[in-house]
Amino acid sequence: MKLIDGKAVAAQIKQEIADEVAAIKEAGGKTPHLAAILIGHDGGSETYVAHKVKACNECGFKSTLIRMDEDTTEEQLLEMVDKLNKDEDVDGFIVQLPLPKHISEQKVIEAIDYRKDVDGFHPVNVGRMSIGLPCFVSATPAGIMELIKRYDIDTKGKHCVVLGRSNIVGKPVATLMSQKATPGNATVTICHSASANLKEMCLQADIIIAALGVPEFLKADMVKEGAVVIDVGTTRVPSETSKTGFRLCGDVKFDEVAPKCSYITPVPGGVGPMTICSLMKNTLLAGKKAIYS
Amino acid sequence: MKLIDGKAVAAQIKQEIADEVAAIKEAGGKTPHLAAILIGHDGGSETYVAHKVKACNECGFKSTLIRMDEDTTEEQLLEMVDKLNKDEDVDGFIVQLPLPKHISEQKVIEAIDYRKDVDGFHPVNVGRMSIGLPCFVSATPAGIMELIKRYDIDTKGKHCVVLGRSNIVGKPVATLMSQKATPGNATVTICHSASANLKEMCLQADIIIAALGVPEFLKADMVKEGAVVIDVGTTRVPSETSKTGFRLCGDVKFDEVAPKCSYITPVPGGVGPMTICSLMKNTLLAGKKAIYS
Repeated sequence: MKLIDGKAVAAQIKQEIADEVAAIKEAGGKTPHLAAILIGHDGGSETYVAHKVKACNECGFKSTLIRMDEDTTEEQLLEMVDKLNKDEDVDGFIVQLPLPKHISEQKVIEAIDYRKDVDGFHPVNVGRMSIGLPCFVSATPAGIMELIKRYDIDTKGKHCVVLGRSNIVGKPVATLMSQKATPGNATVTICHSASANLKEMCLQADIIIAALGVPEFLKADMVKEGAVVIDVGTTRVPSETSKTGFRLCGDVKFDEVAPKCSYITPVPGGVGPMTICSLMKNTLLAGKKAIYS
Repeated sequence: MKLIDGKAVAAQIKQEIADEVAAIKEAGGKTPHLAAILIGHDGGSETYVAHKVKACNECGFKSTLIRMDEDTTEEQLLEMVDKLNKDEDVDGFIVQLPLPKHISEQKVIEAIDYRKDVDGFHPVNVGRMSIGLPCFVSATPAGIMELIKRYDIDTKGKHCVVLGRSNIVGKPVATLMSQKATPGNATVTICHSASANLKEMCLQADIIIAALGVPEFLKADMVKEGAVVIDVGTTRVPSETSKTGFRLCGDVKFDEVAPKCSYITPVPGGVGPMTICSLMKNTLLAGKKAIYS
């Protein structure tokens, strides 16, 4: 069994990005600039945004954090989005989700100029990814593909079972894994809450990508010997031993599944660090105008 | 075994559309208007476009066929697309594919205003479909879903194997079959040219959607007893008994597969007629501004 060290890979990629940014700056080019809008003070969102700002610093990017009150109206947020769309210094920006219930996430996502949509959530980027055109691929699926690539895991013709059909992980990673590319080119099965014979399906899988958000859903008796297991789950569960009062729990019962695997990602330290890393890669691409001019 | 009669269902839907259009006209509403651009004189394209114009007449739509020479430049075609984008009387339009090799299909597709893209090929429509938002769903996948719906075939939790990963059939139909909807909600496996153990995968399927474009690829020994088989193949093969010199051949070896099936679509007369029907439905939606205002 080989542990996939997302933290180490992410650090390596951030170093690669930092080197490229240093070269860009030295050549008199523009410093990539990521802006983030954070509404309110949700603990999880605060943490994620702080990590993103820190990653920007590590990569040599300029970053701007825009804080807005919990009671910001949809109209006010859309005005801010419009302002960032028009701000020529901002190469890409994100609106940290989830949003307060009185604001339509979909409306906000669609208001973002797709050429600055480094989260890859805008329909234009989703559609272009599906068709196989250059685009901003959303961060988690991109991070998973990068891990598979860096560990040189063979995917061609393999059977990959994706657990979960969310718009931000399950669906896009299924698309990427089935596309004619390396990594990719796998036979892909998408399973979800309505799937019958889920266990039998998992037992056939050469690669399992678990993105259900159900803590320790995948047990040892659902995994075949030698499988590759990618755990995307990050549910916060109460923990008495943690200072914060909670710990992150994956979708995989790690202790019993790991011994059967050829490769497995831990939680934390697997897919998580790669997600922010992918956002940095998209920001670099946006700064270089490598996808959209 | 029950034969799925796409011709009959298509006729019924066109009648439903015609009734609605008659009511719209009676109420003083606008007659839906579909335009089609046809470049050159490819035999297949001529036939398809003629069928579409005929279907418009049956539905009570206004239709406009714009013929352009084989040596039309990309720029000239893009100008025509722009003209139709701006023409307020045209509710939707299509550019008949394939295009001559000197014109980029993707560039032309992206130049079409997505609000008039009744073929559903524009990235905005592809992305919105993937996310599960209202959009123009491309004609063949929409037609397949409609057939499944009208025959009241249970798909929830079933295993659906899609053979083929094309942008216009395989990928979108896989997305639709896996979405939380009725029909839909199936466990979906996407197979393609690189898939290993394709036969074993097909043998597990409750529903097979064959969209490889390989004549008679699916044999009886690849299908389990009681399966539903949807044949999307329409390869032209030479035929001495046909007046035209060819016949349409599906991806399924019909004679040997049919006896094992609970439901099966024939070729021709299965998915084919539904495809044009879906285009008519999209045109009606465009005319009513039911998706985009």
